Amino acid sequence: MSLLVVGSVAFDSVATPFGQVDEVLGGSGTYFSTSASFFTDVRLVAVVGEDFPPQHRSFLASRKIDLAGLQTAPGATFRWKGKYGFDLNEAQTLETHLNVFQTFKPELPEAYRESDFVFLANIDPELQLDVLKQVRRPQLVACDTMNYWIEGKRQALLKTLPYVDILIINEAETRQLAGEPNLLKAARAVLTMGPKTLIVKRGEYGVLLVSEHTIFAAPAFPLESVFDPTGAGDTFAGGFMGYLAATRNLSEASVRKATVFGSVMASFVVEDFSLERMRSLVYEEIAERYRKVKLLTEFAGLD
Amino acid sequence: MSLLVVGSVAFDSVATPFGQVDEVLGGSGTYFSTSASFFTDVRLVAVVGEDFPPQHRSFLASRKIDLAGLQTAPGATFRWKGKYGFDLNEAQTLETHLNVFQTFKPELPEAYRESDFVFLANIDPELQLDVLKQVRRPQLVACDTMNYWIEGKRQALLKTLPYVDILIINEAETRQLAGEPNLLKAARAVLTMGPKTLIVKRGEYGVLLVSEHTIFAAPAFPLESVFDPTGAGDTFAGGFMGYLAATRNLSEASVRKATVFGSVMASFVVEDFSLERMRSLVYEEIAERYRKVKLLTEFAGLD
Repeated sequence: MSLLVVGSVAFDSVATPFGQVDEVLGGSGTYFSTSASFFTDVRLVAVVGEDFPPQHRSFLASRKIDLAGLQTAPGATFRWKGKYGFDLNEAQTLETHLNVFQTFKPELPEAYRESDFVFLANIDPELQLDVLKQVRRPQLVACDTMNYWIEGKRQALLKTLPYVDILIINEAETRQLAGEPNLLKAARAVLTMGPKTLIVKRGEYGVLLVSEHTIFAAPAFPLESVFDPTGAGDTFAGGFMGYLAATRNLSEASVRKATVFGSVMASFVVEDFSLERMRSLVYEEIAERYRKVKLLTEFAGLD
Repeated sequence: MSLLVVGSVAFDSVATPFGQVDEVLGGSGTYFSTSASFFTDVRLVAVVGEDFPPQHRSFLASRKIDLAGLQTAPGATFRWKGKYGFDLNEAQTLETHLNVFQTFKPELPEAYRESDFVFLANIDPELQLDVLKQVRRPQLVACDTMNYWIEGKRQALLKTLPYVDILIINEAETRQLAGEPNLLKAARAVLTMGPKTLIVKRGEYGVLLVSEHTIFAAPAFPLESVFDPTGAGDTFAGGFMGYLAATRNLSEASVRKATVFGSVMASFVVEDFSLERMRSLVYEEIAERYRKVKLLTEFAGLD
């Protein structure tokens, strides 16, 4: 219950070896909240321009996402244009137009201040900290970031991290943040910066969850057709946080299940452009794929 | 019992970001047989030159490896020189001197013809087929290959594959052999070429085992210090085939355990140059790390 996300709502133009789309619904906040909505109620804090069409708002509302925190500002919605080669693990950004996002100042509706679970999607770490200060006593805070902030706003990021319980970033970001090529050593270094848990996203290889006393490796569900990886990381985070918020169980076992649910959600979203796959997705499909991931990883112990 | 390997015995010169060594013991046959020797008896078919020193022979003999098939030919032993950058997943070959390997014609001692388990390490696919013809009724044949043969001896390789039960290659080789960028589709295509099972080696991400009705993902054991990845693939194969030969159990469950044992063996060999780590390794350490991989991957099913 009461899962809050602050992030972007955007128009994406994406080209992959399998096709291309122009100005489709995207953004970290969109992917996160849609994914989490399969598990719990979500509150979305973001900004869109006056060009944001009613049908996108209707889609988010149809997922029961609370849009009281979705501001509309004069100007155009954030736009991102990117492409992928056959190595779908890495996007090449062609254009970024921040538009209304440039002056975005997240302001939480009063009710949102009581949120127990918070996800700070990949935005300026100063804004992330601003948001956190507006939440009274969050039970669990997770956070994403990227190379741009690690390099350009390192001090602000290091000020935000002590308030973060779970940092969810990719391999290259982990190495960059720690300044250490070995992933496990880098992960341990990141844990000294504040987060109690680090989740390293590894694209088609799954994720590695590292905390002081435990490591958990979850594979990605192998797919015969990855259509568009855009939003996979935020969709992972949405499933992960959505499950935890729904169960309010932060035990090691629960966090592992949440990780697998996140991985399963990401495996769906990449099957089509934008959030198309999420429109038809039903919980039984999620449960079915969860069971398949279990079969994918099981082996006997020593006798 | 009766596990046969044909492969190379070599002198390697290797540079990694952590140090370098010159003319140390290496070669696919060496790594495979040493790894397998922790589980079962191994017969090594290979060739060395007159410069191969007694202490290397003594080391192999100390691991109870049967050296009746290790020919000594006039000339110098095979030499390989390579280096790795911080991305330890990929070696850059600097020099290859085939030397006595150039005219290598594997001839199996009579007793070897009754071998039940056979591993064809990465050599010319024509030689691999020659060896197979000399084995009377192998119960299980596994095989490695590389980009050089996939491109340069494709027809010979396609003639060998129908006699192979388990092909053990890396991701790039899988994609190249199938001519298909999606790994899972590529794996399915490879299965139509003969092997009933494909094991895709993914370096620090572990392995993916694909057969007609099942997929198994085994993570690599996360290491804080990977010193030299040379031989990791052959060491994986040695642990995998060694365990299967020792148990003579080819059930799905057993093959999964074998995969994890292979992965565990590989995690040890990369901790030091050459086969140094294998000299001090004891079975209890292997069992301990197997248990850790189990903890690394376990999560609860759905309620």
